[in-house]
Amino acid sequence: MIVNMSEKASEQEIAHVIERIREAGYQPHVTRGVERTIVAAVGSGRRHEIEALQVAPGVENVVPIAQPFKLVSRQVKPERSVVNIGGVKIGGPEVVIIAGPCSVESRQQLLDTAYAVKRAGATMLRGGAYKPRTSPYDFQGLGLEALKILSEAREQSGLPIVTEVMGTEDVDIICEHADMLQVGARNMQNFSLLRRLAMVNKPVLLKRGPSATVKEWLLAAEYLLSGGNSQVVLCERGIKTFETEMRNTFDLAAVALARDLSHLPVIADPSHGTGKQSLIAAVSGAAVAVGADGLIIEVHPCPERALSDGPQSLDFLGFEKVMRALTEPLRPVAH
Amino acid sequence: MIVNMSEKASEQEIAHVIERIREAGYQPHVTRGVERTIVAAVGSGRRHEIEALQVAPGVENVVPIAQPFKLVSRQVKPERSVVNIGGVKIGGPEVVIIAGPCSVESRQQLLDTAYAVKRAGATMLRGGAYKPRTSPYDFQGLGLEALKILSEAREQSGLPIVTEVMGTEDVDIICEHADMLQVGARNMQNFSLLRRLAMVNKPVLLKRGPSATVKEWLLAAEYLLSGGNSQVVLCERGIKTFETEMRNTFDLAAVALARDLSHLPVIADPSHGTGKQSLIAAVSGAAVAVGADGLIIEVHPCPERALSDGPQSLDFLGFEKVMRALTEPLRPVAH
Amino acid sequence: MIVNMSEKASEQEIAHVIERIREAGYQPHVTRGVERTIVAAVGSGRRHEIEALQVAPGVENVVPIAQPFKLVSRQVKPERSVVNIGGVKIGGPEVVIIAGPCSVESRQQLLDTAYAVKRAGATMLRGGAYKPRTSPYDFQGLGLEALKILSEAREQSGLPIVTEVMGTEDVDIICEHADMLQVGARNMQNFSLLRRLAMVNKPVLLKRGPSATVKEWLLAAEYLLSGGNSQVVLCERGIKTFETEMRNTFDLAAVALARDLSHLPVIADPSHGTGKQSLIAAVSGAAVAVGADGLIIEVHPCPERALSDGPQSLDFLGFEKVMRALTEPLRPVAH
Amino acid sequence: MIVNMSEKASEQEIAHVIERIREAGYQPHVTRGVERTIVAAVGSGRRHEIEALQVAPGVENVVPIAQPFKLVSRQVKPERSVVNIGGVKIGGPEVVIIAGPCSVESRQQLLDTAYAVKRAGATMLRGGAYKPRTSPYDFQGLGLEALKILSEAREQSGLPIVTEVMGTEDVDIICEHADMLQVGARNMQNFSLLRRLAMVNKPVLLKRGPSATVKEWLLAAEYLLSGGNSQVVLCERGIKTFETEMRNTFDLAAVALARDLSHLPVIADPSHGTGKQSLIAAVSGAAVAVGADGLIIEVHPCPERALSDGPQSLDFLGFEKVMRALTEPLRPVAH
Repeated sequence: MIVNMSEKASEQEIAHVIERIREAGYQPHVTRGVERTIVAAVGSGRRHEIEALQVAPGVENVVPIAQPFKLVSRQVKPERSVVNIGGVKIGGPEVVIIAGPCSVESRQQLLDTAYAVKRAGATMLRGGAYKPRTSPYDFQGLGLEALKILSEAREQSGLPIVTEVMGTEDVDIICEHADMLQVGARNMQNFSLLRRLAMVNKPVLLKRGPSATVKEWLLAAEYLLSGGNSQVVLCERGIKTFETEMRNTFDLAAVALARDLSHLPVIADPSHGTGKQSLIAAVSGAAVAVGADGLIIEVHPCPERALSDGPQSLDFLGFEKVMRALTEPLRPVAH
Repeated sequence: MIVNMSEKASEQEIAHVIERIREAGYQPHVTRGVERTIVAAVGSGRRHEIEALQVAPGVENVVPIAQPFKLVSRQVKPERSVVNIGGVKIGGPEVVIIAGPCSVESRQQLLDTAYAVKRAGATMLRGGAYKPRTSPYDFQGLGLEALKILSEAREQSGLPIVTEVMGTEDVDIICEHADMLQVGARNMQNFSLLRRLAMVNKPVLLKRGPSATVKEWLLAAEYLLSGGNSQVVLCERGIKTFETEMRNTFDLAAVALARDLSHLPVIADPSHGTGKQSLIAAVSGAAVAVGADGLIIEVHPCPERALSDGPQSLDFLGFEKVMRALTEPLRPVAH
Repeated sequence: MIVNMSEKASEQEIAHVIERIREAGYQPHVTRGVERTIVAAVGSGRRHEIEALQVAPGVENVVPIAQPFKLVSRQVKPERSVVNIGGVKIGGPEVVIIAGPCSVESRQQLLDTAYAVKRAGATMLRGGAYKPRTSPYDFQGLGLEALKILSEAREQSGLPIVTEVMGTEDVDIICEHADMLQVGARNMQNFSLLRRLAMVNKPVLLKRGPSATVKEWLLAAEYLLSGGNSQVVLCERGIKTFETEMRNTFDLAAVALARDLSHLPVIADPSHGTGKQSLIAAVSGAAVAVGADGLIIEVHPCPERALSDGPQSLDFLGFEKVMRALTEPLRPVAH
Repeated sequence: MIVNMSEKASEQEIAHVIERIREAGYQPHVTRGVERTIVAAVGSGRRHEIEALQVAPGVENVVPIAQPFKLVSRQVKPERSVVNIGGVKIGGPEVVIIAGPCSVESRQQLLDTAYAVKRAGATMLRGGAYKPRTSPYDFQGLGLEALKILSEAREQSGLPIVTEVMGTEDVDIICEHADMLQVGARNMQNFSLLRRLAMVNKPVLLKRGPSATVKEWLLAAEYLLSGGNSQVVLCERGIKTFETEMRNTFDLAAVALARDLSHLPVIADPSHGTGKQSLIAAVSGAAVAVGADGLIIEVHPCPERALSDGPQSLDFLGFEKVMRALTEPLRPVAH
């Protein structure tokens, strides 16, 4: 941490900062320039006390130097982590495709989709039982009934299941049915939920919040690791920006950055990332090219009749095309 | 809802849309232009089925017309709502000032602050017991101990208490101690929590999420009203934008807009809205001028020793100055 | 500038950074912590060479300490600047109101508006001759004809004129007719234009760009001051964010911040700031309360027939109401 | 255009809207629902008069239906355009790589770079002569001297040249030296410049503005095409968002979207898109996978000594690695 004194700071103000840095458990290192003085807080102490110096007299601002996360960092664990979900390994040499409907709507719908996505090459199944919906008047999911259908789909198809958990009260029942628990984007900083999932022996898929920086996302993951659960997969799903032509702005560079900063696997969600069926093939290839360890894609037998997320869902044929496109070589470079 | 057909849509595609609109419970009204055809879905039916037509062949896009919220709307209830919190009325002719520390740190700290803010003119006390923190290594609040201190502060000072609830598991115990429950910005779309708070007989302070549009914020409030709790106060606390010089971008026009669209009281949080002690006086006046029904301001006996939010907290003297500034006339206009 | 070495930086890498800092004209000050070393570049040298060290081996990042602007800063000139535009003083004890149509559409329209806004209390007239329009098919302004009408309006009404300059080729002709030249938001970083206006003996109204931070805005002003023109007024007019219910997000706290950082006067544009006629009264009061030295407001004889910006223009009666509201006391605080 | 009447609109207000739609040259088509009436404006008339109805009494809002751009649209010209720059074809079956330094700093620097990037596979050379810089104290480019060096580099290397034009006053001299003129991101809506470049017989590279939606970007291109210059290549270079870990948020999905909406070629700029040397290889592959017709990449003999953009520039070896990575197959999908 660097405490940057203002140009007009008095000797007394500098002395106060030095004393407070010592009290906070750090060693102060003073650098006196022509125009201003800076004081570095070296070592490890109570960080918030240094941050709060921002309002001490004579202080212009306080600049953090070290990254705030630890256990998720590649500086702590340089080798990449692999998360095993019922035999499917995310973070290894191969890209894992997770597919399925936004919501489980019926037994028929889910089983049909499970077989279709498996046939096309997916190795995991997604499907929502408890649905976070912007409006209380939208379809809220089938709940326990959906969990049972998901269990049956896993048994019949052999595909491990990932489904969203919206609150601590649903954790136990979802753990009975699912192979992986998803924390939705809007719950990324639901710290009660994160603390509860840190104590669960199931892998967690942690979606990036629509207004979360990569650092905040990694700190949310740090809640899981520091609480005891290191089976964490990150998922980029687009951030909220001024561009409204697409549902979100799909931040693919963040996939590369998160993999640079953290050893955790990172997958991408082209469906929410764009919100547009017509763009999913293109951005799926891009996500793989940028380094994503997997993709999670919404597929529905008939998107225009879907109870949620129809506009961004692929039908079976569309999903097959996306899967085929992932095996094609990149467009050649001119010489 | 308007279904906007693409210029090349065939008659068959138009017929399909018309049929689907009927199936969804609406009446279709067709307008044929020179270049394109649009089909309006009139009446009330299953909205998601019209939205999903976005992926039907020949459809360019689907445009919503009606506002998605109902009970919070001034179209349903034109007169303004007043919410009573232990005798303090938010939404009436006067501006209510809520003040107190970000976190309850000790009995002494809270009682001192309660008396100081009361003396300066505040009529409600804030203080965090359960703290949502970006990093798991930051101070997480004193929990139950803080709730007891808050109860004591209310008894001694007579100021009603508002404190944050982070998860459904804490709702009962907080209801025993607090006069108003705050839903934090990052939990604005924690729908499990909203559904639980809809069943509580306590007023709720609903902060706007950092990436929530005004419509999404009102829809979050709609969860509370449609679930049975109409004692809701909205709170603007800044949104996340590219501007990083301040902690958030304080969207004061949204206060005016929310009051135009909804009958619910709207207050503003200058502390989180700017994150800067030095700006709080200026933006507090602006918030009142724009129509805010109240302000919630962070005050600490010694901000540079605060365990959280020090940089944006006022000391007692600073808070007194802000309160005095609120009674001064606006700068005169040149003639 | 602080060069923050990575935890694994070798002694050789640290030595290289120290040498490069010396070569760039600074003195290096080294602070060795337990985990990492930081090197401060003290004094004044070639800043970009320190910034470029970000890619030197062993460097984690480079953190600027000093503010990048000089002449606009209150550290250089603590007393507030006052800009005189044909006798109207912006930055003094009174708030200046500038009003008029988005575009000059006809002699009648402008003269009627000039008299109406003067009667209601405005002391300067705005009106666009050269219009920046998102679409080439929109009304592009009357050009020279509009300038002549503006000149006539000034003579008849006595109100000084501000109008937008879109390119260097129009500077001379606009200087002949206008009292103040406006740089539009989308031209805030049109550095050719800024360099040209730095050599003009006319005050400049510099609008904040829709994606400009306050620092970038002040640096754009620095182009004018460092080039020789210190008659600069800043204008906040809203920034582009995810919120689309309003045309822009009106960043009123930035008015207070810009006045903290700079001695230049700062005015606000409630018309572009919200894009909504119905919100202008509320945000105008807020802008004055937050410290704005003036307001610039769009007024049209018949907004629904305006050739541009109709939705955010006030009619004469609406403008009178806004002016009256600015003299009313703030809503009282509850006790 | 759809005029959406409010629920309380009177018959008189509806009649007024109908009349105004007729006056604006459109045919009104009225749809009366249970709750509200909507009036469609059909045909082609004066669009701004319909937009301005937003402030007519009884109108809730006005919703555009048709896309605002014409000549750039694939609805007007379904087949993809190819732009020929001195023999290099952008928009054809192959991906074009443009590389070179941010700024031309010296003859030696540019010639060395030209040969290095050519050897590695680039077929066009970039280099800035006139530099848009946020601060007036930063290196502003060598101007005419740089243009002469660029000309020499083209002669010696055979690579066509692209360089930025910052203002109308430089257009002629740059046309003498360059094969393609770049409009920088911050000038995307410099309409004076666009109108001037519409009359030039040289291809234009139009960068997307940091806060421009895809539609605004296409409308900026429409200025060029409607003014007579159809040799336009679009360039995505990142947008400004709350994420500050990278210089910009690289909106790769926008490349796919722009190619869906427009026939113009679209390239991508991984250097500005991320601002981070370490991410360029990953996002370059992603840009090609998403459909980019080319890449423009900053390369410098010694990035840590670059006068501008050092942190995002590759050295020669780094560029070679990026080029090689573009020929490698995508990571395989797990089965």
